[in-house]
Amino acid sequence: MKVKILPDNLELEVKAGEQLLEVLTRGGVLIDASCGGMGVCGQCRVQIIKGAVDSKPGVQQSEEEYEQGWRQACLSYIKSDLEIFIPEDSRVEKEFTLQEIKAPKGQFLSEQEIEGLNPDWKRESPVQKLYLELPPPIKEDNLNDLQRLIRGLRQRYGLRRVSVDFSALKKLPEVIRKKDFKCTVTVVRTRGEETDEDIQRGARKPKLIQIESGDTRARHFSLAFDIGTTTVSGQVLDLNQSRPLMTINHFNGQIKYGADVISRIIYAGRPGGLRELQGSVVRTINEVIEKLLEKTRVKREELSHMTVAGNTTMTHLLLGLNPKWLRLSPYVPVANIFPPVRAEELGIDLPHWVHIYPMPCVASYVGGDIVAGILGAGIYKRPEVVLYIDIGTNGEIVLGNQDWMLCASCSAGPAFEGGGIKYGTHATAGAIERFSFDQKVCQVRYQTIGHKPPIGICGSGIINITAELLLKGIIDQNGKVNLSSGASLAKEGKNGPEVLIVPAEQTGIGEDIVLSEMDFDNLIRAKAAMYAGYHTLLDKVGLSFDNVELIMIAGNFGSYLDIENAITIGLLPDIDRNKIKFIGNGSLLGTRLVSFSNELLDDGEKIARMMTNVELSDNIAFMDNYIAALFLPHTEEKFFPGVMKKLESSRERAKPCVPIFKGVKGI
Amino acid sequence: MKVKILPDNLELEVKAGEQLLEVLTRGGVLIDASCGGMGVCGQCRVQIIKGAVDSKPGVQQSEEEYEQGWRQACLSYIKSDLEIFIPEDSRVEKEFTLQEIKAPKGQFLSEQEIEGLNPDWKRESPVQKLYLELPPPIKEDNLNDLQRLIRGLRQRYGLRRVSVDFSALKKLPEVIRKKDFKCTVTVVRTRGEETDEDIQRGARKPKLIQIESGDTRARHFSLAFDIGTTTVSGQVLDLNQSRPLMTINHFNGQIKYGADVISRIIYAGRPGGLRELQGSVVRTINEVIEKLLEKTRVKREELSHMTVAGNTTMTHLLLGLNPKWLRLSPYVPVANIFPPVRAEELGIDLPHWVHIYPMPCVASYVGGDIVAGILGAGIYKRPEVVLYIDIGTNGEIVLGNQDWMLCASCSAGPAFEGGGIKYGTHATAGAIERFSFDQKVCQVRYQTIGHKPPIGICGSGIINITAELLLKGIIDQNGKVNLSSGASLAKEGKNGPEVLIVPAEQTGIGEDIVLSEMDFDNLIRAKAAMYAGYHTLLDKVGLSFDNVELIMIAGNFGSYLDIENAITIGLLPDIDRNKIKFIGNGSLLGTRLVSFSNELLDDGEKIARMMTNVELSDNIAFMDNYIAALFLPHTEEKFFPGVMKKLESSRERAKPCVPIFKGVKGI
Repeated sequence: MKVKILPDNLELEVKAGEQLLEVLTRGGVLIDASCGGMGVCGQCRVQIIKGAVDSKPGVQQSEEEYEQGWRQACLSYIKSDLEIFIPEDSRVEKEFTLQEIKAPKGQFLSEQEIEGLNPDWKRESPVQKLYLELPPPIKEDNLNDLQRLIRGLRQRYGLRRVSVDFSALKKLPEVIRKKDFKCTVTVVRTRGEETDEDIQRGARKPKLIQIESGDTRARHFSLAFDIGTTTVSGQVLDLNQSRPLMTINHFNGQIKYGADVISRIIYAGRPGGLRELQGSVVRTINEVIEKLLEKTRVKREELSHMTVAGNTTMTHLLLGLNPKWLRLSPYVPVANIFPPVRAEELGIDLPHWVHIYPMPCVASYVGGDIVAGILGAGIYKRPEVVLYIDIGTNGEIVLGNQDWMLCASCSAGPAFEGGGIKYGTHATAGAIERFSFDQKVCQVRYQTIGHKPPIGICGSGIINITAELLLKGIIDQNGKVNLSSGASLAKEGKNGPEVLIVPAEQTGIGEDIVLSEMDFDNLIRAKAAMYAGYHTLLDKVGLSFDNVELIMIAGNFGSYLDIENAITIGLLPDIDRNKIKFIGNGSLLGTRLVSFSNELLDDGEKIARMMTNVELSDNIAFMDNYIAALFLPHTEEKFFPGVMKKLESSRERAKPCVPIFKGVKGI
Repeated sequence: MKVKILPDNLELEVKAGEQLLEVLTRGGVLIDASCGGMGVCGQCRVQIIKGAVDSKPGVQQSEEEYEQGWRQACLSYIKSDLEIFIPEDSRVEKEFTLQEIKAPKGQFLSEQEIEGLNPDWKRESPVQKLYLELPPPIKEDNLNDLQRLIRGLRQRYGLRRVSVDFSALKKLPEVIRKKDFKCTVTVVRTRGEETDEDIQRGARKPKLIQIESGDTRARHFSLAFDIGTTTVSGQVLDLNQSRPLMTINHFNGQIKYGADVISRIIYAGRPGGLRELQGSVVRTINEVIEKLLEKTRVKREELSHMTVAGNTTMTHLLLGLNPKWLRLSPYVPVANIFPPVRAEELGIDLPHWVHIYPMPCVASYVGGDIVAGILGAGIYKRPEVVLYIDIGTNGEIVLGNQDWMLCASCSAGPAFEGGGIKYGTHATAGAIERFSFDQKVCQVRYQTIGHKPPIGICGSGIINITAELLLKGIIDQNGKVNLSSGASLAKEGKNGPEVLIVPAEQTGIGEDIVLSEMDFDNLIRAKAAMYAGYHTLLDKVGLSFDNVELIMIAGNFGSYLDIENAITIGLLPDIDRNKIKFIGNGSLLGTRLVSFSNELLDDGEKIARMMTNVELSDNIAFMDNYIAALFLPHTEEKFFPGVMKKLESSRERAKPCVPIFKGVKGI
């Protein structure tokens, strides 16, 4: 049996009864399925042109659509030869480049400021190239090659207690003789077989991993990777200059197995699932490395090391550790600090001497990415109380300073990544990110990423739109559509009241892009989880937002966030806007810094030990805070005085009119 | 083109111009070529039945033989389809079992005595199985799996600073949950990433390599291997009882690349040669393991560790380290103490957690086998001066006691292994090992291994025969054949004077087995090298044989040696026979003992550091001693008073007669 895929014109061999989503995944057609194929996100829409499938109706799907042959691939089982159409917005784009960060309100720190967040550390990389001119052996000094080398390292560099990787030993005799006993050795101190105890006592030992003929010190590079649930970001680092040469971002290949860590953990439980997920992220990493090397002209053999930061699930999946117990109470990881492993053992296409240093994790839902972020942001060196927020499918929060640190994770759901929202999409070309409604002239202005025809709404777009609709009275504080207001923006849709964002004739998908009450509800639940998180941590130490001197927002998502709008809907607290700063990818920053400094490498593990994890999932205070936050911006008006004032002054404007829609550059 | 091999009836596909030896080796027909195919040992004889080869005449070959189609496979290049016959004595037997050691003169120590050579050590294996009953994680104690395990080891066994093998971590979560957090971990202390310095400071750390569900302590085994140039001996050890379960000996598969370490080192220099040699000994090891497991019913997964001892070349070849510089002045090994490596990395068919501990080496020609021997024999704990001798292709000598130790290696050549002797053979079934000539009744009595028809003479046989011929005046002290004596035993052969040992009609090869003057010359040079070695070491410390309180003879070869005969030819000094003891395979003994005791493991490395290597190859004193020893027993009669007395009293007997030959059991 065959499935023909349009517009690709690709044919796949299939069997009757197979799930369409599985068949497409197997055939390399990457389908967006943020729920992991559970049937609930409605993103894997395909249109059956010819042939028949066994299928239930999808979520949020109209009868008309169903009659036109639209189905969810995850709910469809093949009955005959098929011809199907897969629209762009059902697909996972293979690569994307994050937009340049424009600092609209001075809240984005400059690259220099970000680099300086962690002050005063000694530039002494845990990965060193050391050049030696050894005396060739003679009768009176016929020490074996290895001891000659070790003696040289001691005499020339005062290096002691060096252990030697077996593979370096194998090439040792030829390599040292090639250029008359002049050679360069690469020594790493990230983590050999030291135990936690050793490291706490400062006993990080050097390990000799590579040896080259002659003097190769001029070329000395490594890699730093942030493995996000959605995005993998990789950097080539010039270790001689302690600076990144280039960054490349790429969707994590695991997206097709589900948008959030929970779907991935469930998928890993299937036979072969863990291996598949590991292979998938490794392929992404390999593609990023390939591109980085191509563009920077760094050779693979010039790479000495790799540091990675990821949340606990991503770290487990990358290392091939079973994540099953991360999501089952009492939520235990296999490990938080990991023994050394070679890149090639994981399938990463790097020379055999390259070892991986994964940033240590704290708990099941507070991972190495947060530890790296706290390190990069230098919070553990600051006297003032800082709230560090990484907004995403899994929102992570850290509250603390140089003396103490609390952390927590709140399952916000995929709304911030555009998931669980009917027309939600990743932050990709054509995603609506900004939106305004001018009641006076009855005009809607919207802006898409890359200024392409709209295909959906990205996470930051949903926040911006919701804030605007709330301020203009088109939705109320419960997230209900005010049908009596806002002209034909607010209308009765097939599944209840909805708001028209862009009409079909202007979109790239041939249909209206709308937000329904279910969508607003999803967003409210996501922001409530985040806000309840901050609140619960503050309560825990008897502080309030008044005591927070700085909010640092990390993560790719943060880069697009409009602070004012985020406060308006209650995602961020209503405090002095100048106290809120964006630091970009804090995780990548931290994992890069440990490559430049032994001191920071030790700090990373200190941070992991210093953090106290507050488990929110069965925390009663958190539940109370969460329920109180299920309102725009919050049930307690006193927490949001600024927003309440804005709401008062804008409420009257919601009068009927027939709006004009206009795509613009720059709102 | 094809070669048909008889009597195997095997056909190999070949090309014109290919070397016959290479073709046979490739086809799995193992040919004895102690010179490594250099054309000089004459052992790879084959008979061309049909077809033609391009070939030079072989060494020590008669015209008649040449006309009958006998060729050396290493000197023959294929010209057409061939049919060839390969006699038994040209082949390497794949396996052999060493004869039981019968202690004819009380000089063989009993197994108990051998075990007790190294006294008073603490039985505490560096490989331990530890059983744990961990508390399952609960909300109040949700430590990650790894830390839970490490905490358990600390609380229950006081174990600290455990490092963890990545592969053990991978299976950890499933394994501990399978039997409700009851599990057994295997911890090794042989050598993690410790450096020499760490070990000297006693900082040998435990490494967790394996984890199993439930209590598996009852089954706990490891392997000990002695990798000899000729013979590989393997043992399965029961670590709970600190005893070997079984020993299996097997010819080293590398024999076909040359009998001595020099030929192997040369072969390793060819393209792919090192890999081939490594693969070859690994195959032998795998076969021995297979048999050991089959016979002891130990399962592969019940093995936790492997220790190996070999001379420096064998150790390099096993580990895949280039041995090239071992034979070039100033003779430097790649390393003497080796970083840890997994058995599977070398191709050894053992579970991935099994690490190899190679006994440390001292110098290019004093290897881990000697260190193991000194350890096993407990010489480093004894107040009296001991001379430790391992006779073989490469003879190794150690002189010393608890305070000091000198060691040296003398290249004796392959004569003691039956090489370089026309009718020499390995100590295999049909090898003549004992011989007597009774002048009175003019009768020759000979004994073969396994009492099979004679196929050649093994090393100990050559010594016994030479001593007897010397005493009976059939050869003189120069090793020249006394044609006027000894009846038709002494005769003029095709290549000069020779002695008939067994006539054609009684042999298994259809021709006379003889010893020529060239053969005697080879033997004299071999024994002279050994004797000059002892002498040079004694001179170095101003001692003589009178100061030596014990001579310990190690090695398989030693097991067959007749002391009286060895003294007669001057291989051993003419001292009180009670001071000479055989200890069997000292190397295997030592490598076994380090598996039973952390203390002995440390001692091994102490011994390696304690030994002072005396390089003999360009030592003038050694050369003088060597030339003085090129005589039977020695040019200085005063060193051999006992032998001289015997010679005096036997000289008269050499009268002509026609001898009768008789194969017997027990001489």
